[in-house]
Amino acid sequence: MSQPPRVCAVIMAGGSGTRFWPLSRKSRPKQFLPIAGRKTMIEETVARLRPLLPLEAIITISDKAQAAAIRRLVPGLKAGNVLVEPFGRNTAASLILATARVYLRNPRTVVFALPADHLITRPARFIKKLRVAAAAAAEKDIIVTFGIPAAYPSTGFGYIHYSGRQKETIGGEAFFPVLRFKEKPKLAQAKKFLAQGNHCWNSGMFIWRADVFAAKLEKYAPDFFPYWRKILRAVEKNDQGGVAAAFRKIPATSIDYALMERARGVLMVEGNFGWSDVGSWASLTDIWPRDESGNVLRGECQFIGSRNCLVYSPHRLTAVVGLEDVIVVDTEDALLVCSRRADQRVKDVIGNLKRKGKTKIL
Amino acid sequence: MSQPPRVCAVIMAGGSGTRFWPLSRKSRPKQFLPIAGRKTMIEETVARLRPLLPLEAIITISDKAQAAAIRRLVPGLKAGNVLVEPFGRNTAASLILATARVYLRNPRTVVFALPADHLITRPARFIKKLRVAAAAAAEKDIIVTFGIPAAYPSTGFGYIHYSGRQKETIGGEAFFPVLRFKEKPKLAQAKKFLAQGNHCWNSGMFIWRADVFAAKLEKYAPDFFPYWRKILRAVEKNDQGGVAAAFRKIPATSIDYALMERARGVLMVEGNFGWSDVGSWASLTDIWPRDESGNVLRGECQFIGSRNCLVYSPHRLTAVVGLEDVIVVDTEDALLVCSRRADQRVKDVIGNLKRKGKTKIL
Repeated sequence: MSQPPRVCAVIMAGGSGTRFWPLSRKSRPKQFLPIAGRKTMIEETVARLRPLLPLEAIITISDKAQAAAIRRLVPGLKAGNVLVEPFGRNTAASLILATARVYLRNPRTVVFALPADHLITRPARFIKKLRVAAAAAAEKDIIVTFGIPAAYPSTGFGYIHYSGRQKETIGGEAFFPVLRFKEKPKLAQAKKFLAQGNHCWNSGMFIWRADVFAAKLEKYAPDFFPYWRKILRAVEKNDQGGVAAAFRKIPATSIDYALMERARGVLMVEGNFGWSDVGSWASLTDIWPRDESGNVLRGECQFIGSRNCLVYSPHRLTAVVGLEDVIVVDTEDALLVCSRRADQRVKDVIGNLKRKGKTKIL
Repeated sequence: MSQPPRVCAVIMAGGSGTRFWPLSRKSRPKQFLPIAGRKTMIEETVARLRPLLPLEAIITISDKAQAAAIRRLVPGLKAGNVLVEPFGRNTAASLILATARVYLRNPRTVVFALPADHLITRPARFIKKLRVAAAAAAEKDIIVTFGIPAAYPSTGFGYIHYSGRQKETIGGEAFFPVLRFKEKPKLAQAKKFLAQGNHCWNSGMFIWRADVFAAKLEKYAPDFFPYWRKILRAVEKNDQGGVAAAFRKIPATSIDYALMERARGVLMVEGNFGWSDVGSWASLTDIWPRDESGNVLRGECQFIGSRNCLVYSPHRLTAVVGLEDVIVVDTEDALLVCSRRADQRVKDVIGNLKRKGKTKIL
């Protein structure tokens, strides 16, 4: 390659999780919280890309309210780069719309499709990997994905089964052919994956040339390809109604399920750049700095005879006495006190509150 | 007895505990909190006596700020009945001052010396026992005390060792001669007391005629008797300076230590009237109503997979997820999350805050 490839990033910022309640709310999901660092995750995601990309090459996609929040947080982003979905329809629809926009400017542009709410603790290595992946995607008709070395048999992630034998080296980096994307497994299955080797966690990050994306859809996702065409045409004519009409009918499916699990010609690069999806309060105990008793803190807290606790309490003095593995999240109108082992049950709180009609606090 | 004895109650309302932090503060100790019932403990203590005593016969003793609080909470109390100590000097000094006041009106008045911050769940039985104790104290030159049947080998209470053999029956009630008042024991010692029998918890409630109190001081507490005389004289002349001068020098000692441990002629009546000193947050789990999972609540809380927790959160929605035996106390400017087994360590929080100069929150 004599010239660096034309590249851009599409940041998927439309998610609305419940796992960081009560800090996250329907109107303020995780990507808009300063949960991993000092800045919001969306700001950190944008900042992380800046050594590689100018702001003009960074696109976000989300709902309308989130788009407004993004423009406040990243004022340098031009309105045309802050895409708005007419409805939330999961990542296949989002990425079809965003890639169509890129395609219309230049079909050979390489797209980094990236979630807005992941943590990467080794950003320089991440940039290096993106650069190599972009070069490969620019040259070959392939999709590249990052597989995260599996640290334990997680049942919370999908897995990528790749071929270790058939690896190619491109730009000094190993690219492994993907054999299969696998959905979140049961524990026994996850343990088998780890014992077997050649299984990484699916990071949900993908790199494709816009025209390759279209071609892969046509070949492997024939149920989605007609929507690609409709949306491409509507975007070309700046026909919002046409986009909305397509979104109304497109299946609300993840890109993993719509395309990646079915496509061939997908290569995996090892994403050993300190990745975390920051999936729950408990995950922050590995991310925030710990004191000598393993306690982590944002705010002010007296820990007395307590170990491995996490406290988020920026507005009030908190004391945690005689406890282990307890999470305390204190916000203005709601307080969560949770066993670290039970943090997945925070969604049950949300469910109960919904049933009781207490939607103000969701 | 043809006439009912002349009686009055002295409610000791001057304590300042730390064990209910962050709900209790230096300026708002436990007796001023609605911790056991709907009303503050001082209000409940007064209300409990009303079937037996008119308000004119109820006296409180505390510091100046607490006296103002008492007058707000019990507006019927006359100023002359709300005694103010010049300094906090523990219960011996308080009771000398209060009994001197009673003595000057009529030395044969029977005094009920009662803490302001105890819970009694069977008030009718309590009144019946007070009545019988008052009759005995009016007739004989004795001090009567209530001993609480020891439910377990507590190390948090003093004990009364009494003679089972020499009991007297007065007014249909058994009076046992006290052999010895014993300080808070170690666990092994406490277990011995229970195995041995004839040991009750010291409730800190005493009944004496004012002149008998003076005589017992003279005979058994010669180090305190001179203060009795000075204070009696100062009160008689309405000489505040004289009271203050005596208080400045009087040892800051409990009445148990100053008199009861040394006096003879003390009789014990079994205080089986649902007594609790409400000594800590954990004690409330036996007092507040429980749900089917053993959780107790003041305020609003979602309990998810949680058992035997106590939540005080009147102003904010709280969720407790996957926890057992945890106490959560949420106030406007401070939050406590505490293992039930470690609730005695709340005082360490106070100690730390003091050391850090965070006195505003104490």
